[in-house]
Amino acid sequence: MPKKNMIVGQSGGPTAVINASLCGVIREGLSNKDKIGKVYGMVHGIEGFLEGRYMDLGEELGREELEKLRLTPAAYLGSCRYKLPEELSSEVYGQMFEKFEELDIGYFFYIGGNDSMDTVSKLSRYAAEIGSAICFVGIPKTIDNDLILTDHTPGFGSAARYVASTVREVVLDSSVYQQKSVTIVEVMGRHTGWLTAASVLARKYEADNPALIYLPERAFSLDGFARDIERELARRRCVVACVSEGIADSEGTFICEYGEKELSAGLDTFGHKMLTGCSKILERFVKSRFGVKVRSVELNVSQRCSGMLASLTDIQEAEKAGRMGVIYALDGKSGVMVAFSRKQQSDAYELEYCAVDVNKVCNQEKTVPLSWISQAGNDVGEEYVAYALPLIQGAAAPPMKNGIPEYLYRKQIFPSDV
Amino acid sequence: MPKKNMIVGQSGGPTAVINASLCGVIREGLSNKDKIGKVYGMVHGIEGFLEGRYMDLGEELGREELEKLRLTPAAYLGSCRYKLPEELSSEVYGQMFEKFEELDIGYFFYIGGNDSMDTVSKLSRYAAEIGSAICFVGIPKTIDNDLILTDHTPGFGSAARYVASTVREVVLDSSVYQQKSVTIVEVMGRHTGWLTAASVLARKYEADNPALIYLPERAFSLDGFARDIERELARRRCVVACVSEGIADSEGTFICEYGEKELSAGLDTFGHKMLTGCSKILERFVKSRFGVKVRSVELNVSQRCSGMLASLTDIQEAEKAGRMGVIYALDGKSGVMVAFSRKQQSDAYELEYCAVDVNKVCNQEKTVPLSWISQAGNDVGEEYVAYALPLIQGAAAPPMKNGIPEYLYRKQIFPSDV
Repeated sequence: MPKKNMIVGQSGGPTAVINASLCGVIREGLSNKDKIGKVYGMVHGIEGFLEGRYMDLGEELGREELEKLRLTPAAYLGSCRYKLPEELSSEVYGQMFEKFEELDIGYFFYIGGNDSMDTVSKLSRYAAEIGSAICFVGIPKTIDNDLILTDHTPGFGSAARYVASTVREVVLDSSVYQQKSVTIVEVMGRHTGWLTAASVLARKYEADNPALIYLPERAFSLDGFARDIERELARRRCVVACVSEGIADSEGTFICEYGEKELSAGLDTFGHKMLTGCSKILERFVKSRFGVKVRSVELNVSQRCSGMLASLTDIQEAEKAGRMGVIYALDGKSGVMVAFSRKQQSDAYELEYCAVDVNKVCNQEKTVPLSWISQAGNDVGEEYVAYALPLIQGAAAPPMKNGIPEYLYRKQIFPSDV
Repeated sequence: MPKKNMIVGQSGGPTAVINASLCGVIREGLSNKDKIGKVYGMVHGIEGFLEGRYMDLGEELGREELEKLRLTPAAYLGSCRYKLPEELSSEVYGQMFEKFEELDIGYFFYIGGNDSMDTVSKLSRYAAEIGSAICFVGIPKTIDNDLILTDHTPGFGSAARYVASTVREVVLDSSVYQQKSVTIVEVMGRHTGWLTAASVLARKYEADNPALIYLPERAFSLDGFARDIERELARRRCVVACVSEGIADSEGTFICEYGEKELSAGLDTFGHKMLTGCSKILERFVKSRFGVKVRSVELNVSQRCSGMLASLTDIQEAEKAGRMGVIYALDGKSGVMVAFSRKQQSDAYELEYCAVDVNKVCNQEKTVPLSWISQAGNDVGEEYVAYALPLIQGAAAPPMKNGIPEYLYRKQIFPSDV
């Protein structure tokens, strides 16, 4: 087999471990010197690559930098949200493969979520069409955990650990006063509740807060919510409720849009709608209905980019996923995504790695099973706990300097990339 | 000296280390068995104590619980915001001292901020008036770092470490795309900018983000802010600006009120004003003015209650402050607050503990020196870095169980305290 170069890119939203996967790809690439020449990285995904931006990662990153990269959150190479056209006849495919040829690429790796798998699918189909031998492999990544054909996705475990530990602290914080209060915590997840459900892990004992958990898998109603809050306020001093950003009513209207619609009259001061989350809407609702102290807490970007609270299990699996991607490519596989399969027979948590058809993965969505959600749609069951608990084990220990983590960052090397 | 009992309470907002101080008070109390009998804790501060709620901490907390308490954020005993009347003739003082007598209290410790020091001041003055021998000692605590006569306050270092490390991660997160963007991070601090200033520590190199930092010590203007954003957008792809929640214009109007005033027309849907922070207001302003992608991030309660990101230095100092409080009380001191004084001669950071007149501390406010803030009011200088850096050193390591911290919580022991 002639020696070929490889190229890797990152795409979609940041996570705490997308760089761990990058590190895995690079390390495995560099350790196969007989088969792989250069290890290139696209800067800002295929969008930047099409504009000519890439770098020689083997040259740029030494052993020490790679170890730092492994524990650095967000996307070292930069990311993009570039969707390839549906028609494989589009000229962008030709341009892209011309660039592959120029760089003598034999292996292409793309780390990302659903849209990135769509990219891998299209490029591998185009390659088949023109008879190119380049192998295209997807490495999964998303805090949303919504990819099918895999037990879970790298990035989810760290985000879940962030949510579980942070909600536990928010519960302690919200409980210090003796006055009645309601705290509403908003967690990421537009269409699926995997991450919000992780708030159940925050409970220190069975009846502990968060007392209420709402996922987008079930229709949300203000009336039902009011009944839940009323019941909980009668039985405890502080009520903590966790909600997915994407909760919607039975008509399919997002709760976060309630405010925008209702407030739109007064919002032309700056010419823009108020951009608010559902927790703010619910905060106002509860304050108005119950007259108690209410606070809303939007966990915001930290849940996806906290390297300090990342799960060690997640980091290790993410790196291994990157390595396995290279192994599959060297094995001649193309149009595949690295996937996780949990050993069911075993008592302890054990993971197997496999390659699944990327064409089957992209543009699909895995939701939380309805049977894992309580009848009333306001809690999560033991099945979820058993599923999620192994994924949040172990603490990452990023190298510290001056009291805070010393993350790796890419020196700005392109004028357009300031 | 006859053996007396002691009592300790917590008051004001939660911090990551108020329990470390509590732990210090208890440990020092228990280690002076010849002078101190019972170690009582008020549940929900003096408010709960007046209602008869207290517990025997020596009985409740063993060695293992104390170590867990030390690393648990928020207020184990519960807190209150109860302000004693100005007139010492008020009957509440008599009631309180009657309860002290019932419990044979000789030493009273109150862990809190400005208002709590006001409580210590009043109780000690009342004691002097009636000739009571009870010693009243304040243990400082506030993430705001706004108490005078002390180099800094326990709680600040952990909050500053949270802000510095989290902003560093938010900067990485905000930089992944190649599109121009502005991110506005809102940090706690109504009147002083100590905590917001800690965002300067997030910079990985000199010209790194956060590019702009605004403290309430300087008047804020939308025009100046727009000029700053325009200049920064011209020189970099992503601009991260950190603002104190309490920034106000030269008229003294809070920026967070801009929205409320201007939006008030459309906000009667639920009968309440929109409760929004200044970062949301600025997000809309920037989006409207510059048309770039904008995101606002409110760090919210985690900055004051993150036990996972607490500074070890802060925890150690907070515990020592608690211990010193007991030592001062046993030394007969009353009407004092434990204070920190930094050794100026020494190259290394070294702290000395002292007792200062609590009457001088309460109802005063220490702001960030104007000379530490840039002329343009949009950055923080080296003086601040030198001041704050020693305070964020070292990582706390709370005991883990199932992947997340196993914090200590008070079993609910009062019917009114569910």
